[in-house]
Order: sequence, then C-alpha cells, then structure tokens
Amino acid sequence: MSQTPLPPPPSTSFYSDNTSGMAPAVLEALAAANAGPAHAYGDDELTERVRARFRELFGDQATALLCWGGTGANLVGLATLVRPYEGIICPATAHVNVDECGGPERFLGSKLIDVPTTDGKLHPADVEAQLGALGDVHHVQPGAISLAQSTEYGTVYSVEELAAVCGAARRAGLRVHVDGARLANAVAALGTDVRRITTDLGVDVLTFGGTKNGIACGEAVVFLDPELATAGRFHQKQAAQLPSKTRFVAAQLDALLAEDRWLDHARHANTMAQRLATTVEGVPGVEITQAVDANAVFARLPRASVERLRTWSEFYVWQPGRGDDPCDEVRWMTSFQTTEADVDRFAAGVAAVLTG
Amino acid sequence: MSQTPLPPPPSTSFYSDNTSGMAPAVLEALAAANAGPAHAYGDDELTERVRARFRELFGDQATALLCWGGTGANLVGLATLVRPYEGIICPATAHVNVDECGGPERFLGSKLIDVPTTDGKLHPADVEAQLGALGDVHHVQPGAISLAQSTEYGTVYSVEELAAVCGAARRAGLRVHVDGARLANAVAALGTDVRRITTDLGVDVLTFGGTKNGIACGEAVVFLDPELATAGRFHQKQAAQLPSKTRFVAAQLDALLAEDRWLDHARHANTMAQRLATTVEGVPGVEITQAVDANAVFARLPRASVERLRTWSEFYVWQPGRGDDPCDEVRWMTSFQTTEADVDRFAAGVAAVLTG
Amino acid sequence: MSQTPLPPPPSTSFYSDNTSGMAPAVLEALAAANAGPAHAYGDDELTERVRARFRELFGDQATALLCWGGTGANLVGLATLVRPYEGIICPATAHVNVDECGGPERFLGSKLIDVPTTDGKLHPADVEAQLGALGDVHHVQPGAISLAQSTEYGTVYSVEELAAVCGAARRAGLRVHVDGARLANAVAALGTDVRRITTDLGVDVLTFGGTKNGIACGEAVVFLDPELATAGRFHQKQAAQLPSKTRFVAAQLDALLAEDRWLDHARHANTMAQRLATTVEGVPGVEITQAVDANAVFARLPRASVERLRTWSEFYVWQPGRGDDPCDEVRWMTSFQTTEADVDRFAAGVAAVLTG
Amino acid sequence: MSQTPLPPPPSTSFYSDNTSGMAPAVLEALAAANAGPAHAYGDDELTERVRARFRELFGDQATALLCWGGTGANLVGLATLVRPYEGIICPATAHVNVDECGGPERFLGSKLIDVPTTDGKLHPADVEAQLGALGDVHHVQPGAISLAQSTEYGTVYSVEELAAVCGAARRAGLRVHVDGARLANAVAALGTDVRRITTDLGVDVLTFGGTKNGIACGEAVVFLDPELATAGRFHQKQAAQLPSKTRFVAAQLDALLAEDRWLDHARHANTMAQRLATTVEGVPGVEITQAVDANAVFARLPRASVERLRTWSEFYVWQPGRGDDPCDEVRWMTSFQTTEADVDRFAAGVAAVLTG
Repeated sequence: MSQTPLPPPPSTSFYSDNTSGMAPAVLEALAAANAGPAHAYGDDELTERVRARFRELFGDQATALLCWGGTGANLVGLATLVRPYEGIICPATAHVNVDECGGPERFLGSKLIDVPTTDGKLHPADVEAQLGALGDVHHVQPGAISLAQSTEYGTVYSVEELAAVCGAARRAGLRVHVDGARLANAVAALGTDVRRITTDLGVDVLTFGGTKNGIACGEAVVFLDPELATAGRFHQKQAAQLPSKTRFVAAQLDALLAEDRWLDHARHANTMAQRLATTVEGVPGVEITQAVDANAVFARLPRASVERLRTWSEFYVWQPGRGDDPCDEVRWMTSFQTTEADVDRFAAGVAAVLTG
Repeated sequence: MSQTPLPPPPSTSFYSDNTSGMAPAVLEALAAANAGPAHAYGDDELTERVRARFRELFGDQATALLCWGGTGANLVGLATLVRPYEGIICPATAHVNVDECGGPERFLGSKLIDVPTTDGKLHPADVEAQLGALGDVHHVQPGAISLAQSTEYGTVYSVEELAAVCGAARRAGLRVHVDGARLANAVAALGTDVRRITTDLGVDVLTFGGTKNGIACGEAVVFLDPELATAGRFHQKQAAQLPSKTRFVAAQLDALLAEDRWLDHARHANTMAQRLATTVEGVPGVEITQAVDANAVFARLPRASVERLRTWSEFYVWQPGRGDDPCDEVRWMTSFQTTEADVDRFAAGVAAVLTG
Repeated sequence: MSQTPLPPPPSTSFYSDNTSGMAPAVLEALAAANAGPAHAYGDDELTERVRARFRELFGDQATALLCWGGTGANLVGLATLVRPYEGIICPATAHVNVDECGGPERFLGSKLIDVPTTDGKLHPADVEAQLGALGDVHHVQPGAISLAQSTEYGTVYSVEELAAVCGAARRAGLRVHVDGARLANAVAALGTDVRRITTDLGVDVLTFGGTKNGIACGEAVVFLDPELATAGRFHQKQAAQLPSKTRFVAAQLDALLAEDRWLDHARHANTMAQRLATTVEGVPGVEITQAVDANAVFARLPRASVERLRTWSEFYVWQPGRGDDPCDEVRWMTSFQTTEADVDRFAAGVAAVLTG
Repeated sequence: MSQTPLPPPPSTSFYSDNTSGMAPAVLEALAAANAGPAHAYGDDELTERVRARFRELFGDQATALLCWGGTGANLVGLATLVRPYEGIICPATAHVNVDECGGPERFLGSKLIDVPTTDGKLHPADVEAQLGALGDVHHVQPGAISLAQSTEYGTVYSVEELAAVCGAARRAGLRVHVDGARLANAVAALGTDVRRITTDLGVDVLTFGGTKNGIACGEAVVFLDPELATAGRFHQKQAAQLPSKTRFVAAQLDALLAEDRWLDHARHANTMAQRLATTVEGVPGVEITQAVDANAVFARLPRASVERLRTWSEFYVWQPGRGDDPCDEVRWMTSFQTTEADVDRFAAGVAAVLTG
C-alpha cells in the first residue's frame, strides 16, 4: 500500500529553538559595534549599556555578567551559590543535570541532587524531602535549588508555584538559581513583569537566555544578590566565560533587549507552539503529553510515524518508547522565526502521516 | 615648564590586539550564515567546511573543535593531555599560568609547573630539570609541556628551538600543547608552513587563535593526535566551550582561513610592530626589551613618560618598576587593523613625550 | 499503664559494625610492629608481606595499596576508572552515593549515576538503561559501575547475579568497581573462593575492608587490572590516603588475613545476624525487610517501640516513616565481637518492648 | 687503596622522623581504648577528651578535628580558607607544594602561588609582592598564606618573624594557615607558649602533627576561627579524613598530649639534631647549610661520601648536586627515639667516611 504523499516541509525547523538564526536588528547591531577599537573583557560602552538594561529589568541591585552560552552561564551562577560539600536540588530533567555532560559536577565539585518530576518542575515537597541531611557530615548538604523557567518540558511555573518552591528553599537557608535559558518565554506566557518571578521571590542568581531567542550567542548571568556578583566575576573568568571582545556579545543582547524584542520574540514563539498544539491535538494517534505553556510541544505518537516524519522534517525524539511501547515521545519546538505557514505545513505533515 | 604638545592620538589602540574588531569579510560571512535554519552544536555545513580547512592546514589526521575563546580552548586541549596527578610544565609568563585566573588548575585539578623565563620561551633544560620527579608518588608527575607560539613577550621560537623543546618533552614521554592564540603571527614571522612547527614536531594539540586576528570570537582546538579528539569533544562540552549556534563561529573562522586572510592579517600586524620598534628604538629613554618577532613591542621608559603617554593613548603596563626603578616596562601591540599612520602617530607621541 | 521492664542491655552495640574494636591478635601485631625503625610510605617489610597475601587471595596480577579508610579507598579505586566526563552507575543506596558527603564528585569531578534499588543491588537492566547516552557529548558518559558486595542492605549478590551485572558492564566497555567494605561477609555468606566473585568476573578494582572486621583502621585498594595500579599509586597520594607509617596499617591487615581471621570474623558476624533475625522475626510488630545474607538485619517496627529500644540500646534508624506511616525502618548490625548472649539479650529487649 | 672501616651503624634511622615508631604510652593507650564498643566518627569520649586538650592548648575558641595524616589535615584546613579562584601563597619548598603530589590543587581547585625561599620561610615581602593581583579577574586572587613551623629546612620562625608575615597577610585580608606537622619542634625550640605563635598572631587554622612525634597515625586540624570549623567538618568528610573508629586516633593523641609528652619528644629530637650538627660541623668536607633550629640537619658533602654513608645508614638526599657540583645536599633527621649513642655513631661514621 502506498503512503499518503506529504506536503513540502516547512522552511524552518522544529528540532530546537537553537536552529534559528539572528534577528535582522541583531545583525545590524553587530555591524555597528564593529566601528573603531574597544576595550576587551567588558570594559566597553556597549557592555555598560547592556548592564544598565538589566538593572532596569531586574532592579538596581542586579549585576549582569555577559557569557558565551547557557551551560557556561549556569556554571558561573551556580558556582557562587555552593561549596563542594553542598549539593544542588534540581528536577531530574534539568539541563544542568542531563544536558551539560556533567560540567557542573566537574566545575563545582558538587553533587546534583536530582529529584523525579513529571512536569519538569520542582515542588516544595521535593525540597523538604532533602532537608533531613542538613548537619550530617556523612551526607551532601543541600545548599541551593536550581529550577528552569520555562522548563525543559515547555511548562511554565505560575507565580504561585514559583513563590512556593522559592519560599521552601529560602526558609531552609538554601539559595535559589533559575536557569532562564527561556525565561523570556515564561515572562511572555505569564504576562507579568519579570521581577515578579525573580527579584520579588528572592531568586539569588539567574541565567538570562539570549541565544535561543534571536541572537547568535550570548547569555547573561544576573546576580540579584549583589554580594554574589564579586565572586561571580572570578568564577566567570575561571570558567572561560568572559568574552574577550565582549562588545560583540553586548551588541547582540542590547539589540535583543531594545524595544522589547526579547518579549516579542518569545510571545511569537509561544503563539506558534500553541497553534501547533491546537492543530495536531485532534489528529488520531497524537497525544500531547505536557501543558503547552511556552514554545515546546511534547507529544506521543507511533514510532513508524515518527520515523517517516523525521525524514521529511527533522525533530528531536525526547524519549524512545521502552519495551513494548509502540510510541515515542517527541519534542517540537518553535522560535521567533517560526511562521504560521511553517506551523501549518508541519501540522499538515503530521496529519498526513498519522492518517495516511 | 610647559610640556611639549602631543599630536592627535592614533585611531586604533596599542593596548592589545583584542581591541580590534572584525575584518569586513568576516562580518559578511556572519550575515551570509544567517540565512535559514542550521543544526546546532557543530552539526552544520559551515562547521564541516572549517574542519576541512584545518585538515588542509595541519594534515588529514587533524581534528578541529570550535570553541568560544582562547582560555576555553586551552582548557579543552590541556584536559586531554594530563590526569590530575600530572603537571604541565610551562614558562612562568604563560597565559595559562597568569592570565586565566587559575582556570586550568580548577578544570584539570593539575598543577602548572611554571619555570622562570626571560624571553617567554620554554627551553629543553627547563623540561629536563623537572624529570627527576618521574615515578615518585610524592611529587606531581610532569605530564605535558605547554608553550605559546608566538609567546606572551611577542617572541617567536625558531623551528630549531621548537624542535629542541618538543623533542625533550617527547623523549621523556611528555605530551606537547601549543597555545597558538597568536600562531598566525609566528607562522608569518617564520615564513614557514604551519605544519613544520606543529604536526611535524609531534605537537599533540594546539589552540589556533582567531579572536585577536580579525574575528569577533572563535578559537579552534586542533588535535593532531586523533586519539585525543574523542575525549576532547567531551571535555569541550563539559568546559562549556561547545557553541550552540556553532555556524556563527564557523562562519567567522571560515572567512579568516579563506584566501590566507589569517596570514595576511598576521603579517600586517607583525610589520606594524616592527615599524613601531624601528621608529622608537632611537628615541632617548626608550629601551626595547624583547625581540620584536611578532606583533608586540616591549619597552622600558620612564614612569612619568608612561603616565603622560597613557592619558593620550592607552596601553598596557606590563611590569611597573619595582623599588627605586624609575622605569616601567610597557607593551605596545599591533593588529590587522593597525595602520602605518597609527604607528607613525604613536611613535611621534612617544618621541614628543620622551624628548619634551 | 506501666511498661514491661527491659532486661540489661547487651554489652556490644548493634548500631554499626564500626563500634567494635580490634581483635587481640591485631593489637599484638601493632605492638610487634613497633620494634625498631621502618621506612615510611609502604616501603617496609610488613607492607610487602601484606601485598603478597593479597596476591595469594586475588591472583598474581593483583596489586594492593593500603589506605586509611573505606571512603578514601573508594576514591582511589574509582579515580583510576573514569575521566571527569564519565559517570559511575551505582545503586541509589550506595555508600559512595549517600554516605561520603559527595567526596567522589569532588575528587573525581564525575557524576554518580544513581539508580533506584529495592535490595541494594545493581542489576543488568540498570546498566543497560544508561547506555543510550554513549557517544552523545551532551550527556555524561557511563564509564564504570560501582557495586557493593555485601550491600548496604546486608544483602549478598549470588555469583550468578554478580556475573550478570559485571558482564553487562563489560560488554558495554564499562569498568567494574566493587566496594568491598564488607567483602568478607559476602565471601563467608557464599562460601566461595573470593576470586570467583572478583578476579574471575573481570572486576577491575575493589576496596577490601578491614576496619569493620576486626582492626582499628585499614582498607586495601586491590587492583586486578595491573595497568590501573600505576595510576592508582598517584591517586592514592593525591587523595591523602598513603599512610606515612604504613607498617602500622600493614601489621593490622597482616594479622587480619593470617589464619583466615578475616573469614572467621565475618562468618561469626553473619551467624549472629541470622540468629538475631530468626529470633525477632516471630515477634508481633516486627517485619524483616531485607534478606539477611550478611551481618545486618533490616526491620520495620512501630516508632514508639523504636524510640524506647534506642534509649535502652542504641541503633540506627535507616528510614524514618514518612507521612502517616507509624513504623520506622531500622538497621541492626553485628560484628566479630557480637556474642550469642548479646544477640539473645537484644532480641529479648525487642520482644519485651513489642509485646509489652 | 682500602677505605677506613666504618663503625656499626646507629640503631635508629636519620632518614626521616617518620621512620620512628610509637612511644610506649601511646601503645598502652591503644590497648586501653580497645575495651568495649564506642561510637564511630568522633562521637566518643576519647575524642571529646582530646578536643578539650586542644582547647586548653589553643584557647576556648579552638576546634580540633582528628585526621589520619598530615597531607589530609593540610587539605582540610586549606579547604576552609579559599575558593577555587583564590590562591595560596607558600614557600616553594612547602610540603603542600612539593610533597603532596598536587593533592591541594586537585582537592581545592586552587593555584599554589609558590615563592622562592632560601631558608624555608615566607617573608612579608613575599606576601606583598603578590598583592598587585587583587581585584584583577585575569589573575588568581591571593586568598591565604600557608607556612610551616618548623619549616621543611628544619628552621624555626622567631615570634617576631611569624608576627611580621602573619601581619602582612592579615592587613591584606588574607587568611593564615600553618602546617604544623612539626609544630612541637618549633614550640620546643622557641621555649614559648604555643598560643604566642598561633592564636595570638591571628592564625586561622593549623595542622598539629602527631605522626612524626611519637604516635602511629594522627594529626589534628585546629581551627582558631570558630566560623571555619563548621565547614571544616564537611571538608574533612569529603576528603576522606574522618576516621571511622576515631577513638584509636584519639587515644594516641591523648597520650601524646598528656604529661607534655609532645614537648618532651620534640625537645629531645631537637637536642639530638643539635648534638649531631655540633659534632659533624668540624668534619672537613661537611658544610651545614641551614640553621639547626629543630630536628633536622642539612649539610653539603661530597657525593662519593654521601654514597658510601648511605649504604651504611640510609638518609635522604635533599638536592643532588647539579652540573659540575661535586657535592650533594643531604638531610639528617632526628626523632623522639634517636639516642645519644645513635647520634655519636652516626657522626663517627660521617667523620670516618669524610676523613678516610
């Protein structure tokens, strides 16, 4: 029996939001930053301007250090929070736990205390369950929590959820780290001021993502506790995350933060993910597995369909089905560059394969 | 008494070669690379093209991994060479020893065995003097040497010098790392094929610098021993030196390597340094302290002159005079963007201050 | 209502096997070793004699390094097996995972990949489930397994179980580490030659415990792969696990290995644990929760009973009941010094409290 | 020509003070400590008694943690003083720098900033010369100093010398660590209260040596700043320096501290070293190279004599002569067990060989 023919694949990829490129304004900013000499290592005007933008966003006590990438920015932030005998409580799905090749353990010397999760979130009970170890020299001391907003599952903590888990940490004397590689998507989803989900909740340090949201490279470590920032500068240099020609990272982040581009980009990506979810959720054989709060759609579908679809337009298999399970769980991600036409073509492809 | 008035300062800076920007072709390459989606983490066509260029340069067995910056590239390369009980013999002036905030010790857990140097070079006797520790469990085991070509003093090892020190290391079973942040300047200075000072001498791994030579960011770790490259990929990820959108680093390095731009840039910078040295060496009170082999001029001059000059056109004081010494040692660096007019203006300023 | 009066408590403790002291022959050996001078750091006759004993036990290719304690011996052994980007698969209950304050992560820089367990054992499926990460630079690379024989739950792998999990590891190219803090108890329980559960199964390195089995201090790291031993000597010194006056550790281990004392001690401890289990398992309210293969009895009993018993004769609460659970899980351990009278008194106390 | 016949060699060794054994009272204390069960990990009466002794010695704010050996005790103490981007200034000859196989760099992730020394001491100028790096993210931040009292050269800081270097450190905000593996010898040499050279000078943490001074194993990390002690307990466990059956280490230290044995032992060893120095300094061809303040004699003598002497009674060649130098520098150490007869025999051997 012949298979249903598939429409032309979309022009952008649903594999990951880091398959996208730079927004035009970002490229223009790079060109503009190229005029004349500039001091290296962050001692330049563009970097100062970006730091001021971060103070506007997070409050006057915020100090932003510009790093190359998200893994590095996470290393730098976490390094300021714990000593080697202190562990970091995080969801088992955390990027720091599973997608950084053990870099945190190596750079910090600390254990990641990973806890099971179904929705990518850390909950107050997860924190409280670890507190029995406090004071016992045989056990790693819980020293901080690390959570992602939005999560690796594309879910977004509500303000209340976030307040609850941050509160549980702070009551126990633990520091709070937020991996905000996709913080923009969470802010867009919640429609709230970014301070309400960071500064106001006692977050100590966060990674503010740029790379997945319209620039070529650049993430900021934002210290909300000013006492941490001094140590942070040295951890940044040790971690090889202090760009030499910082102006070119700063130029990109400056353009991203200008005119609320970071939020517009994220809002668009979120909208595209919801459009995709809405379209495919009625397709027989497709089961959406996570709340589509941000810019990712997680779905289960039969393996044979997955395979055919991936040869047509590649995407990431999050979890291959185990044992007899005939379905894989897949991830479809959108970005600031995803168009409605891309979504509609992709959804059409899914429908064609599943119903073919 | 009034001071001699100074000419207008040069339009580029002699502070460091990393105050320069991107060559036009590099910026164009970034724009071109921005078209369409691309896989992340080095799985894209541009990265493959750059890797091929490095094979052309260093031989078929060469594997290049693209990193963000020089400190990170050094970390990745060195990490493949030693275990924590093995130390790395290097000159006391080495960038890995004094300018990376102890990052190597932290990431590797290894001691840097730094040896005194007057010219920035490592000599065979420096290696041999450390070999007595081999086999003694109380002492760090010499495991590798790390040398910079060109050196932090702007000097360049001759082929013979390099062969001698690499030979001393290899006879003792030590690995060889080359910090080539300014390898281009050395190749330009020696007028030799790059393989003669790397592959042919048994160098195991090197950092190939791009950032200081005409691009915004990007250094390659080039493994000449293919067995090291596999481990290198994991060290790269752990060290947070695997760019997410690698295509944008690749695009820059591709443009730099195309049409021998890397060599043209370096040759130009070297010529400018020699022009500067030639012009100022006759100025009374200026003493050139190192051979001007590459793109740096080191000089001693009276502190008062240094201070006046720096307010006019800033540069780096390498070594403030100690005790009663009335002179400072300063460093003047040139880059691919330094012009003859810049050099002449700067030299005129030096002459005006010193003879004023 | 008045409580049943309790019998006099036992004269030894069921808290842990490390509350016991030295066997008389061990103390005598210490005194004998004190005559005259001896070279430090293992270069003495007693140490050589002990090393020969380990070769007799494990085969001619075995190299034993004498360390202070079990945590240190585990560090040294594991350090030879993995690089920082390689993780160590172990049961979640492993001593290296929960009772060493994160020392392995700090010393190795590696992640411990801990997997859930109900019986303290690692199973082939636990290993196989981690192999999908192999080759992916984003994920920690499984590099070794670490298992305890006997386990922290007092269970003992059968020869077949051990062969299966070691085989799964070796087929995937993973190294095998055995935490044998209580290896003697496992050998005694299985009644087999120690080689059958170590050397013959391709174990690479093991910790051979002495401290809990009749001496004051001393554990051996035994390398069965001779290539690992060379690196092991340096890791041992770096880990501060090379005793200065090694002869005094060697004297103790020599006495322990002489005349099969290590096995006699372990056999006795095992017998005492079984005697205790047999006696208390019929007491209403006491539920034995793990197979009593070695020298530990795990049991659930009501919290009020636990509290009263602990004020009478202290022991370790392994897992306090969570939420509404009225029972705690406790651990009762025996040693070479536990007497039948101790067991009978302790069991009588348990019966008195539970039925009082 | 026949050589002068040599007298019978001494019955103890001048190789190192760690070739000696245990004092009789220490062995008796081990036997006494073996009665009955005791809690592990320092929660026992003997350990508490030793801690009280250390409070009597160093002041009420002192907290002593009992460790296995000197390398480990140094690791634990230093770990509380610096973060990985902070370096430790120490003399190039320091045990932590050259005799611990790079363990400090590995465990701390920090650089040791070693400075040249002729007498084994650190001087205020050595500290001050490093302060220019403070605040510069490119450079390791001086965070602490580590000095040995007595030094590896057998020299002893006067109270004034020690006050000067500690003062220089403290004025710059640096912490102070004392490697007191042979602190007893310094106290005996100075004839002062131990507090005058530790607590009163603002020392933060010290290693108090026992092993080389009459016991089988045991060193204490003594925190004089109580805020450091809490972290110290976790570093101790992570460093595998928390003895399981602590009572046996405590028993030894208790006996050593009782009745001023530690001082008597050290005083005796110092006297023996002076006796040796006095006797051999008149022998032609022997040149004493360091002040004989404590229990070591450093001397230069012709290599042929060194070789003949070592086959008769072994000792350590500190520095083989380089190049054409016909002499080696050797070290002769005394201990609490060295007798006058040993010294006289050894000196007679030296005289016989040198004048033979």
